[in-house]
Amino acid sequence: MREVAIAGIGQTKIEEQWDKSLRELAGEAALCALEASGLNRVDAVYIGNMMSSSANHQQHLGPYIADWIGMRFSEAFRIEAACSSGAAAFRTGIMAIASGELNSVLVVGVEKMTDSPGDEITAALATAADADWEVDQGISFVALNALIMRRYMFEYGWEKKDFAPFSVNAHANGAHNPYARFQSAITESDYLRAGMIADPINLMDASPMGDGAAAIILLPADSNQYDKTGKTVKVVASAAATDTIAAHSRVEATWLKAAELSSKAAYSQAGISPQEIDLFEAHDAFSIMAALSLEACGFAERGQAPRLAQDGQIRPNGRIPISTRGGLKARGHPVGATGVYQLVEVVQQLRGEAAGSQVEGALIGMAQNIGGSGSNIITHILRTN
Amino acid sequence: MREVAIAGIGQTKIEEQWDKSLRELAGEAALCALEASGLNRVDAVYIGNMMSSSANHQQHLGPYIADWIGMRFSEAFRIEAACSSGAAAFRTGIMAIASGELNSVLVVGVEKMTDSPGDEITAALATAADADWEVDQGISFVALNALIMRRYMFEYGWEKKDFAPFSVNAHANGAHNPYARFQSAITESDYLRAGMIADPINLMDASPMGDGAAAIILLPADSNQYDKTGKTVKVVASAAATDTIAAHSRVEATWLKAAELSSKAAYSQAGISPQEIDLFEAHDAFSIMAALSLEACGFAERGQAPRLAQDGQIRPNGRIPISTRGGLKARGHPVGATGVYQLVEVVQQLRGEAAGSQVEGALIGMAQNIGGSGSNIITHILRTN
Repeated sequence: MREVAIAGIGQTKIEEQWDKSLRELAGEAALCALEASGLNRVDAVYIGNMMSSSANHQQHLGPYIADWIGMRFSEAFRIEAACSSGAAAFRTGIMAIASGELNSVLVVGVEKMTDSPGDEITAALATAADADWEVDQGISFVALNALIMRRYMFEYGWEKKDFAPFSVNAHANGAHNPYARFQSAITESDYLRAGMIADPINLMDASPMGDGAAAIILLPADSNQYDKTGKTVKVVASAAATDTIAAHSRVEATWLKAAELSSKAAYSQAGISPQEIDLFEAHDAFSIMAALSLEACGFAERGQAPRLAQDGQIRPNGRIPISTRGGLKARGHPVGATGVYQLVEVVQQLRGEAAGSQVEGALIGMAQNIGGSGSNIITHILRTN
Repeated sequence: MREVAIAGIGQTKIEEQWDKSLRELAGEAALCALEASGLNRVDAVYIGNMMSSSANHQQHLGPYIADWIGMRFSEAFRIEAACSSGAAAFRTGIMAIASGELNSVLVVGVEKMTDSPGDEITAALATAADADWEVDQGISFVALNALIMRRYMFEYGWEKKDFAPFSVNAHANGAHNPYARFQSAITESDYLRAGMIADPINLMDASPMGDGAAAIILLPADSNQYDKTGKTVKVVASAAATDTIAAHSRVEATWLKAAELSSKAAYSQAGISPQEIDLFEAHDAFSIMAALSLEACGFAERGQAPRLAQDGQIRPNGRIPISTRGGLKARGHPVGATGVYQLVEVVQQLRGEAAGSQVEGALIGMAQNIGGSGSNIITHILRTN
C-alpha cells in the first residue's frame, strides 16, 4: 500500500461568519492548503460535511466547492458520518491515494451552522442519533450525552467539579490559537458557575457550534512535491469502527467500543503502543466524551480519566496532551469540519507550529473524530521524523 | 492496484414502500447480496443516499444500517453526490479494496422518498442544483432539464416526438424486470398523449421517484470467495468527473463534458473503445439526459442520439442497448440508490440473468450515474469472461 503524506493545510477562524457563504468558507481553507502545497490542481476534492442539506439548502457540495476553487472537472463528492464526517473524508482521501487510483486529493471539512435558527440546528444535530428510537422520544443530542455523563458519575463516583480540568485545559490552549472560536482562558470557578444545559452538562462542558472550514492536501509519500512545507508529516494509521446508532442499544453506555476498536487497529497499523503517542486530539464535544475517549484508547484506566485530567496529564506538558489547540470545546465544533481541524492541528504540533501550546518534541500525534453518541469513531495517527 | 470483483448483488422492488423504513429497505437489499456472496461479515459498509436528512429526518446512515444488518462495529459511512451518490459509494468501495486497506465492502444505495409531501421532495431534489444562483430563482430540477432539452431541440432541429423511442425502449425493458416501478410497455402514442410537466418534458420523459435499495458486495478479484456466484464479474474501470454545479455556467448546456471526461478515462483504464461496450446503463432521469449521455460517451454523433434511438439501436438487440432493465424511466429513480441499481443490472446482463431483455453474449457493460444537471458524472465498466 502506498504511503500517504500531508502536503498542505489550511483553516478559517471558527465564528459566526454571516458575511461568507458555505463555498466561500470552504474556498478560504482549501486555497490556503493548495498554496501551501504549491499545487494548482488536484485529482479529487472530498468534502466532509454533515448538515448543509438543512442548514444551507444545498447538497452536492462536491461540484459546488470544486468549481469555486478552480478545480472544475476534477472528481468531487461528499462524505457524511455525522460529527465524524471530517475524518471520514480524510480516510477516503487516504484510500484513494493508497490505491494508486489518484495522485493528489484535497480534503475539505466545512460547516456553516449559524445562518439557521437554533432549534433547526438542534433538530439537524439530532439526525446523528436514531430517528425511530431516540429522537422521536424528544431527546436532543446534548441530553443523550447528559444521560451518559450521569451514568458515568454514578458508576465511578465522580462529581460535577471533577470534570472542570477538561474545560480549563481546552480554553487555556485555545487562548493561543488564532483560529479558535474562544480565545480566553477560564478558571474552575468559571466552569462551576456556568449555566446548566442538560444536567449534568453545563455550558462549559459543551462545545460551541460555529462556521468554519479546514483543508488538507494528500499526496503519495514518495512524491517530491510535499517537501516545500518544510517538515514531512506522514499518515501512519487510519482506522474506523462503528457501534449501535442508539446509545441505549450498547452493552455499556460508558464505554466507547468503537474507539477501542479503531484505536487498537490504528496502533497496530503504526506499530506503536499508546505510550508512544505524544499528543491526542480527542473529540471533546462534551467533557464526558473526552474522558471516555481517553479510556477507550488506553490512556487512562476505566473510570479514571478525570483523575488523569486533575493530575495535569492532559496539558501540553503532561503525559498525554489533549485539545492542544483548544479542542472542540474552545476551538469550536463546526460538526462536519471538526475532524479535519483536528488533523490540521496535529500537523501544526508535529511541525512545531503551535506556539503557546506546543507539545515539545512531538513526533507522533493522534486524532480521533466521533460521530453520534459514540456510534462512528475514526482514528488517525500522523508521524514526523 | 488490486483488481476488484463483484461477489453478490441484491435489490428491492422500487415502489411506494410505506410499510418499510429506510433501514428495512436497505437491509433487504444488503442481506440478499450478503447471502449471494456467502459472506457473513464485511470490513465496511458504504451507503449511497441523497436525501435522508430531509425525507427521513435521519442522517448517519452508516451505523444506522450497519448495525441493522448485523455488521455492528464495522466501518460505515455515507457518500453523497446528489443523484450520483450510488456510483460514488461504489467507487469508494473499489478504492478501499484496491488500496489493500480493506478486504470486503458492502455498497448499499438506498432512498425512501414517498413518505414526504411532493413539494418537500421537489425542494430536496433542488439541493442538487446551485442554491445561490439557480434554486433561488424558483427553478425546479425538471425545469432545469426542460431548459436543456429545449435548447437541444433548437440547436439540432428535433421535435418532441423524436424523443419517444427512449421512453418506449425503457418501458419495453422494464416490463421484464420484476423489481421495476413500472412493468408495462408503452407506445409512441402513449408518449405523445402524456401530460406536460415542464415544457417540453412530459410525464413520459421524466423518471418516477420511489422507495428502493440495491446492494453489491466487493472483494479482491484474487479472492476465492466470489466464485460461488457462478460467473465472475470484475470492475475494469471506475472514473469520476465534475462540471459546474449551475447549468448556466457551462460552456455548452447541451454537452455533458463530465460524461465525456469520465467515459474517456474509463475506456482508457479498461483498454477498450466505445465500440466494445455491449450494453450501457445510461442515466435517463429525463429523455434528454439519455441522449446527451450517449453522445458524450461516443455512441452517437453530437446532436444525433435521437436518430440512434429511432433506428432501434438502443434496444436489447441493437448496437448499444440502454436502459436494459427499464432504466430510470421505468425501473424508477430512488435518487441515491439509482447508481447501485444500474450496476446490479449490468451484473445481471453479464451473467445472462436478464430474461426478456437479455443482451445476447454480453461480456462488457458500462454504467453511468449523473448527479445534478450534469455536474457530477461517474462511469464504471464491468467485464466477464
